[in-house]
Amino acid sequence: METFFNPASVVVIGASNSPFNLGATICRTIKHFASFPGPVYAVNRKAEAVFDCPGYAQVTDIPGPVDLAVIIAPAAVVPDFIAQCAAKDIRHVVIESSGFSEGGPKGQALQHAIDTIAKAHGMRILGPNCLGVLNSRNRFCCFYGIFEEDFANFTRKGGGSVSYLIQSGGIVVIMLESLLSDVVGANKIVSIGNKCDIDEADMIAYYGQDPTTEVIGMYLENVKDGRKLIETARDVKKPMLAFKVGRTGEGARAAMSHTAGMVNDDRIFDSACRQAGIIRLHSISELHSLPKIFITMPPLKGSRIAVFTNSGAFGGITADLLIAAGLKMARLAPEVQQRLQATGQVFNAANPIDLGPTISMQTFQDIFDILLTCDEVDGLLAVPSLWHPVMIEVITELVKKCHAHGKPAAIYTPNAAAKTIGYRTNHQVPLFESPEEAVRALQVSHQHYLYSLWKESEDLAPKEGENYEFASSGA
Amino acid sequence: METFFNPASVVVIGASNSPFNLGATICRTIKHFASFPGPVYAVNRKAEAVFDCPGYAQVTDIPGPVDLAVIIAPAAVVPDFIAQCAAKDIRHVVIESSGFSEGGPKGQALQHAIDTIAKAHGMRILGPNCLGVLNSRNRFCCFYGIFEEDFANFTRKGGGSVSYLIQSGGIVVIMLESLLSDVVGANKIVSIGNKCDIDEADMIAYYGQDPTTEVIGMYLENVKDGRKLIETARDVKKPMLAFKVGRTGEGARAAMSHTAGMVNDDRIFDSACRQAGIIRLHSISELHSLPKIFITMPPLKGSRIAVFTNSGAFGGITADLLIAAGLKMARLAPEVQQRLQATGQVFNAANPIDLGPTISMQTFQDIFDILLTCDEVDGLLAVPSLWHPVMIEVITELVKKCHAHGKPAAIYTPNAAAKTIGYRTNHQVPLFESPEEAVRALQVSHQHYLYSLWKESEDLAPKEGENYEFASSGA
Repeated sequence: METFFNPASVVVIGASNSPFNLGATICRTIKHFASFPGPVYAVNRKAEAVFDCPGYAQVTDIPGPVDLAVIIAPAAVVPDFIAQCAAKDIRHVVIESSGFSEGGPKGQALQHAIDTIAKAHGMRILGPNCLGVLNSRNRFCCFYGIFEEDFANFTRKGGGSVSYLIQSGGIVVIMLESLLSDVVGANKIVSIGNKCDIDEADMIAYYGQDPTTEVIGMYLENVKDGRKLIETARDVKKPMLAFKVGRTGEGARAAMSHTAGMVNDDRIFDSACRQAGIIRLHSISELHSLPKIFITMPPLKGSRIAVFTNSGAFGGITADLLIAAGLKMARLAPEVQQRLQATGQVFNAANPIDLGPTISMQTFQDIFDILLTCDEVDGLLAVPSLWHPVMIEVITELVKKCHAHGKPAAIYTPNAAAKTIGYRTNHQVPLFESPEEAVRALQVSHQHYLYSLWKESEDLAPKEGENYEFASSGA
Repeated sequence: METFFNPASVVVIGASNSPFNLGATICRTIKHFASFPGPVYAVNRKAEAVFDCPGYAQVTDIPGPVDLAVIIAPAAVVPDFIAQCAAKDIRHVVIESSGFSEGGPKGQALQHAIDTIAKAHGMRILGPNCLGVLNSRNRFCCFYGIFEEDFANFTRKGGGSVSYLIQSGGIVVIMLESLLSDVVGANKIVSIGNKCDIDEADMIAYYGQDPTTEVIGMYLENVKDGRKLIETARDVKKPMLAFKVGRTGEGARAAMSHTAGMVNDDRIFDSACRQAGIIRLHSISELHSLPKIFITMPPLKGSRIAVFTNSGAFGGITADLLIAAGLKMARLAPEVQQRLQATGQVFNAANPIDLGPTISMQTFQDIFDILLTCDEVDGLLAVPSLWHPVMIEVITELVKKCHAHGKPAAIYTPNAAAKTIGYRTNHQVPLFESPEEAVRALQVSHQHYLYSLWKESEDLAPKEGENYEFASSGA
């Protein structure tokens, strides 16, 4: 699998100098935007060079060895190119072209031809009907149609540690774009399309052992093999977050016309996630917003939360959300409340803790220490309004204290989303964009903690129907 | 009520030149930031002028008549000032000070003293424990602690037509901040605090007949008089959107410690909203995000939605959301699908309509006309990715076509929130920030349409338990 993300040499089949040729954009990205160090070849009828990639009419004409083939030729000619790849002993192929199993009986016949050759020669295939891969660390990327500025942006944060498997190209784009204004970055991204060979379980297994991947994010339109998914994911201890489309019949029908695949009963997917220790997401935006709770904060080991705010209304709003999410408002002992009152700035020392308009860093530090060392508190929901410049230092300090005390805080600044996103990007602090998102982050952090407990325990085979989720009515 | 938003003369009681005096910030806002045309007086012990507002020791020392008193003195002295206001024949008073019914028996006694005087003299009181009012049209504002830049921003969009009644100051700030990057603006805002006199029903009645108010938004921590609320709101035909904290016991407790008031059973509030034709909101962000569907689009008269996207994955995602929201995927007749196919750019002409990467404006116009004139379609959910500059023109054109054909579109651009907000602000197009928000906008548009039907009908007295909502499992 590593070869897909880190090939030594590449051929782009279907890259030519015709106007609007998508293959040419792949050559351009690999050769020019990414300055790929190894040889990159193009295959087209005229055997012409494309963006400085030497051109050949047949794959077998290429002189040197080739690690990876990227195919973006029309569906009808793809089986022939697969045969050429086999003859050239290329074992790793990305098929980006569409028109296969999502395209009726004719497409299905083409797919069958491909499968037969690939199986006979031990080839691994990614796609078809996909965007391929992006590896932000070595900057290898075989997406078509990518602009230079976007590529530069997407690979700028090369130290990212969230790896994605995404069944649709459109979701890849919104994910990369959204991470630009967040504190965590993408590591590897793979768009798996129709999954004729490599499927979600293969990718989970690979990301599970990939040393630079800390969190695995998935967008799925269907599941190819539920049993394989469960058995593979059960062995993976990293947080796995999955959004699946098709909760309703209408959604499933729309997804099926998009990337081929049988419609899965949504309840079965739900059950599979529970058995596999995969956290199912409620919205597509959670795919980029939630990983930061795992990467920037210690896990939430219990469900008792202290709410800390300088905007009284949000005490009530977040209390409602926490209870709905199956979490609990921590009960603070009288002596803890007295210590909070002693800081001299607290309007309300019972949880939620409502703070006056102080800008004293010492007061904030004292309060954080009191709450994070308190036995009745497992984690914080911090809602500090960005009303004064010192608040960003306060938030930075809170992040440090969380690590020092081994308890997490989900931080939501009750300001316009544009302002929150701006501060997050400029100061690299893990801010959530809504109180719902912050509460959900605590919920998934605790959920993953519970999953990791049973994965570490002896009993690695939970039975169908067993519930490893803590009580929750959803967000 | 008009006097609160448009007084001819004002006194700020408790404004002095002491450091950190909040009353002084009110004088500064009214006199300097807003260039208030009438006289503004200050009342303080030293009888000193504050920010060019002449100062007096007693309200009764002021030479000319006074329309409105704003009190921000300590709670203990407020009853005495109320008595002075009565003696001066001031009938409109804003009490911003806290420490009354939310502050235990002592505060409740002070509140009782105020009530007695006010009642005897026919005074109307706003608050206590509130921020007062902002009128973006004449720029009158008695909020304390407001910065010049914020005031300028908040009143810049003086033509706004959403009026708010908000029980908490913190929510006022996030609302104003959020509207800065949206296409609609605030008209009047009132923070009603403890509601010792003027309550939510009074404000609804006022906004209901206010000619410049098109949509009414509410943030409530409790309801003072449910029967009065229902009877008042039932006569109001404008869209009324209400977020109420306290859905859970913990939330209600937190709200009660913030602004005083009995805890209301949340189910009773739900029932009251249904009987009154008030749309209950699911999150605080909906208070600023949803009004634009009413102001920028025709109403959604039926529940059949056509989804139109150039990002295939979002066809499935939005179909799931529409069904969950109680809306329907429109069934397009074969001849409609043929006409869509004839544009030559459509991947999938069955709903959801999945478009290729065209940038032809004519194609977009043709598709919009086909869908908006189609009898099987009541409204659109448009999901155009901002991948090319022409897309913003496409969206502008769609808004025009919606008005021409009398059907709404909720528009979500599947891009990073920062990008969507930036385009919305710079191009003034009504974009929603998530697919959930766009679907919810269609849901509330249709809900309000159904409410307006029964309000226009003979039967204006729906019975308790009757359901005027269309089927929905929530967003």
